[in-house]
Amino acid sequence: MEFPKAQRRGRWDLLTRIEGPRDLDQLSPEQLEQLAGEIRSYLVDSVSKTGGHLGPNLGVVELTIALHRVFDSPRDRILYDTGHQSYVHKLLTGRQDFTRLKSKGGLSGYPSRAESAHDVIENSHASTVLGWADGLAKANELRRRDDHVVAVIGDGALTGGMAWEALNNIAAAKDRPLVIVVNDNERSYAPTIGGLANHLATLRTTDGYERFLARGKEVLNRTPVVGKPLYETLHGAKKGLKDFIAPQGMFEDLGLKYVGPIDGHDEAAVESALQRAKRFGGPVLVHCLTEKGRGYQPALEDEADQFHQVGIIHPDTGLPVKSSGADWTSVFGDEMVKLGHEREDIVAITAAMMRPVGLHGFAQEFPERVYDVGIAEQHAAVSAAGLATGGLHPVFAVYATFLNRAFDQLLMDVALHKCGVTFVLDRAGVTGSDGPSHNGMWDMSVLQCVPGLRLAAPRDAEQVRAQLREAVEVDDAPTVVRYSKGKVGPAVPAVGRVGRMDVLRRPAETQRPDVLLVSVGALAPMCLEIADLLDKQGISTTVVDPRWVKPVDEELAPLAEQHRVVVTVEDNGRSGGVGSAIAQSLRDANVDVPLRDFGIPERFLDHGSRADVMAEIGLTAPDVARQVTGLVARLDGRYETQTAEAARD
Amino acid sequence: MEFPKAQRRGRWDLLTRIEGPRDLDQLSPEQLEQLAGEIRSYLVDSVSKTGGHLGPNLGVVELTIALHRVFDSPRDRILYDTGHQSYVHKLLTGRQDFTRLKSKGGLSGYPSRAESAHDVIENSHASTVLGWADGLAKANELRRRDDHVVAVIGDGALTGGMAWEALNNIAAAKDRPLVIVVNDNERSYAPTIGGLANHLATLRTTDGYERFLARGKEVLNRTPVVGKPLYETLHGAKKGLKDFIAPQGMFEDLGLKYVGPIDGHDEAAVESALQRAKRFGGPVLVHCLTEKGRGYQPALEDEADQFHQVGIIHPDTGLPVKSSGADWTSVFGDEMVKLGHEREDIVAITAAMMRPVGLHGFAQEFPERVYDVGIAEQHAAVSAAGLATGGLHPVFAVYATFLNRAFDQLLMDVALHKCGVTFVLDRAGVTGSDGPSHNGMWDMSVLQCVPGLRLAAPRDAEQVRAQLREAVEVDDAPTVVRYSKGKVGPAVPAVGRVGRMDVLRRPAETQRPDVLLVSVGALAPMCLEIADLLDKQGISTTVVDPRWVKPVDEELAPLAEQHRVVVTVEDNGRSGGVGSAIAQSLRDANVDVPLRDFGIPERFLDHGSRADVMAEIGLTAPDVARQVTGLVARLDGRYETQTAEAARD
Repeated sequence: MEFPKAQRRGRWDLLTRIEGPRDLDQLSPEQLEQLAGEIRSYLVDSVSKTGGHLGPNLGVVELTIALHRVFDSPRDRILYDTGHQSYVHKLLTGRQDFTRLKSKGGLSGYPSRAESAHDVIENSHASTVLGWADGLAKANELRRRDDHVVAVIGDGALTGGMAWEALNNIAAAKDRPLVIVVNDNERSYAPTIGGLANHLATLRTTDGYERFLARGKEVLNRTPVVGKPLYETLHGAKKGLKDFIAPQGMFEDLGLKYVGPIDGHDEAAVESALQRAKRFGGPVLVHCLTEKGRGYQPALEDEADQFHQVGIIHPDTGLPVKSSGADWTSVFGDEMVKLGHEREDIVAITAAMMRPVGLHGFAQEFPERVYDVGIAEQHAAVSAAGLATGGLHPVFAVYATFLNRAFDQLLMDVALHKCGVTFVLDRAGVTGSDGPSHNGMWDMSVLQCVPGLRLAAPRDAEQVRAQLREAVEVDDAPTVVRYSKGKVGPAVPAVGRVGRMDVLRRPAETQRPDVLLVSVGALAPMCLEIADLLDKQGISTTVVDPRWVKPVDEELAPLAEQHRVVVTVEDNGRSGGVGSAIAQSLRDANVDVPLRDFGIPERFLDHGSRADVMAEIGLTAPDVARQVTGLVARLDGRYETQTAEAARD
Repeated sequence: MEFPKAQRRGRWDLLTRIEGPRDLDQLSPEQLEQLAGEIRSYLVDSVSKTGGHLGPNLGVVELTIALHRVFDSPRDRILYDTGHQSYVHKLLTGRQDFTRLKSKGGLSGYPSRAESAHDVIENSHASTVLGWADGLAKANELRRRDDHVVAVIGDGALTGGMAWEALNNIAAAKDRPLVIVVNDNERSYAPTIGGLANHLATLRTTDGYERFLARGKEVLNRTPVVGKPLYETLHGAKKGLKDFIAPQGMFEDLGLKYVGPIDGHDEAAVESALQRAKRFGGPVLVHCLTEKGRGYQPALEDEADQFHQVGIIHPDTGLPVKSSGADWTSVFGDEMVKLGHEREDIVAITAAMMRPVGLHGFAQEFPERVYDVGIAEQHAAVSAAGLATGGLHPVFAVYATFLNRAFDQLLMDVALHKCGVTFVLDRAGVTGSDGPSHNGMWDMSVLQCVPGLRLAAPRDAEQVRAQLREAVEVDDAPTVVRYSKGKVGPAVPAVGRVGRMDVLRRPAETQRPDVLLVSVGALAPMCLEIADLLDKQGISTTVVDPRWVKPVDEELAPLAEQHRVVVTVEDNGRSGGVGSAIAQSLRDANVDVPLRDFGIPERFLDHGSRADVMAEIGLTAPDVARQVTGLVARLDGRYETQTAEAARD
């Protein structure tokens, strides 16, 4: 965790001498400013080499320094919503080796209790921090502890319903101390009117804030680069909320003391506001205006997301070092544009992730037919049910792991009402580097029990396009199309069809083939490799891709009966996954051919590259082939024993 | 659907002549008042015979009449949140036969698209209506339709995060028409200050409303029966919210036109407000103050919940006709009180259902250790993670079907963080009369994939107590205890133990017993009956209750291997349920004994009594026994064939 000596004396001299938060106490204002600069320089230097959430962390440098000067972590609990903005926190709490960030054995990209006692929450799904804070504050109250609970939440995360549920509870307890820091990084503010923020901290009336807003608009509109359209664009997604959080009247009505708005890059101002909040003795909200990408020109110039998350980039230009190539997301995004032209009734929904889920092309072509609902997966699903009932066909594109937020709505609103809504799950399966909460390993399990739902796992780009088209044809049930993260693999052609299933490989001619290998989605190439490996052991294998894994194809059971063993391989949790569903369908058909199901074991997976994680969990062709070989040998032995016993009887 | 003639001429003369909403148009103010009276009388008369949501419907009589006079259903869409307040709507839209309410073949207790074109949403989970309305309004906009969308939502349901997610979206579109009716039935208002409401409708400033609130308090405090403590109690759960919704300033800030507060029992006033809202041309919120149980003295006098939902009662006294006896809920509730005395660290959480989930006793004994978080299951789960991290052991008691709302939080906040939180799932399995959305048939499926989670399904009262105690001992993982609705069955003693599993029945002595019957939870008596029936067919059966169904007991596989067939029976969806998990555990142990799993088929179940539903889905002892008998015969045949073949080879 230490830098080599040469570096210590160099660009990050002050930073490298910070071993823990209390080392901040004796720094002068000038040193604090120097430290902030060093942190930014270090973040750009290191994150450009590893990839990571660069923009958000550049925005919270002063805020994080102030938090650690005012509060005494880990005794006081500093909680970060989502957690991708915790790099600065890591640097100030003894974690300064970012060389293997998000890689196996390196630092996590989120808070991690395994790394440090200063970390509390590591869920990395948004909008949860206020609920955690409410629970911790209640525990403090009951146990008569006087340490502080501080929750840092972005303005975006306040669009999530959980945040409101929590605010409603927090506000109800007037004497229970809890500090909420709203990290409001809507970038239209900070650079142009940051100087106002300090002054505005004293303004308490809505009217005062309105004037502040008006002045902000005025300054922006005078600035040629960021004229009116930009201002309006920036205000699109968060506008309702912005009106919501800005006038402190609302928070005060709710029972929360409001402090702000504060210039989040004026460390002294933030510190002073936090000190007041700390002394208050009840729930208090500190509204900080920060700038995502602060201090790094390439990020500031990136209108899309200010380098919210980057891959490996050149530190000076911010340009990606690797070429990106066609990935699953863009295959989907391109096809959506085509579908949009063909069918007027298709509309798209995103939960604050227009670009990451690939809907920006569709949004450009059909701006009136795309809805960004904020970080609000529940609303995405329920409003989709309404849209479908109103005669449209909504496509809600979302990361697979975030679909869990909308499970009840998918079940009760979409499925129960037989609404034709298509859920497109990006980043399904092992994603790896973002850690346990970002793997999309739950969807094919929890969706199994949804009546009427149809679930597609396309194996290549062609199938993404084809299955998306099949999905949007269904108008009386939810459909799901799920695919992996990153680059799409090579095309895997079918050599035949059984029922609606594609046969990817037929066994060498044999009386009764040994193994029926059911390949799910992107694992098709791996399954073909498994078959090759089995071949070498003299085990003949049929490989099929069911394409639609739910419902299970009726032809699967008769096909299974022609084999000695059924093996399923899926990039999803084993518990209740596709393998389990297929096993049940075989039982229901009275087909008792032995089955073995391979997938992700039932545990949370540490961060690392996808390949590292797959190897660790044994989801590789050699691992599976070895186990299947063992199984076939065991069955041979058992059969021989049975035959011998039967002959003896 | 028609009343006998004698009745038509009698008490409900006007009501019975209403065949559809347009029949309301020509009624005079006096007739409307008469109609409201008839509806109340009819509701008390009929719901007292069948049970149902009496209180809420008595509160929305005038409101519903006004809605149907102002809007033109079904062209205009009138949407009800949760839907238990739709009885009046049914009476006005051609459904006046309440004799078999909630029974098989009778009217549903919620809106039902199968019943009427006037019904749209039938999910019956709270806080969804604004999302639906947003979707429908967006569809209207895109399709250039000019019909109206009206969403009726209770003040309680506004505590749910989904409602806020929706408001944030609705408010963002200033020109998209949508009428929100807040049915604010906090009963402290209407009876005492109903006369004020009309006047207050014209007051638009927070200050004005504050005066209204102050006057309400004053009146209440002058009334001896409902003095200060009552006022404060009533304000407990919803207080944060009340401050929230009352001052229209907040809604206006958000971009919603606010109309109110209106006396919801002054039909003309409601009508006038709705007319204004209808003309507005953008999102508008009409705030109606109503009184739950209006016009029915026994309901008004019931401090707990104003007859929110009743069983069969005597219409004059409101007293239950049947004695209630010990039910699952009260067994849990009583044990919680004991545990509360024994362990100071145990705290309880409810999502606005203190009494229905049996926590009122605990709340009385330990008021500072119980948290009612509102209709906010997400917050319940996340704040529980915070409480656990703060050193307490939270017990969150919730209906099984509502746990789906908190799945992501259970997984990412509780399980990932290894928090010791106990989830107690009431109304698990087939509940029947409340229809598809209230059956607790999903929990044992969706929870299977949660790493580290332990799930108990107690079979009788003794086991509820024992397993609850075992659950709260676990401090490093989520634990779940799930049980049925209604009366708890007879004690089912164990006759032995294998691993941690209770043996409920041993087979008659035999070399190799035929069937291993795995009984889950409350189905133990049924499973013993199945064993008896199999016995009569000469099939010997071992019955075990695993008690903890997740993780699967390691001793199950070796035990299974001693049998010819494994049969699992659970009161839960078959897809991905306990049977599937057991089957997987057998596969993992290389035990390929045939298994058949019985449970609830993967479809939404129509309303009816539990017995009716169980019979319809074939989850009865004779049905299961018959199928198992067939299976054993088939296996015998197969075994004989194999043996013959082997001997011949």
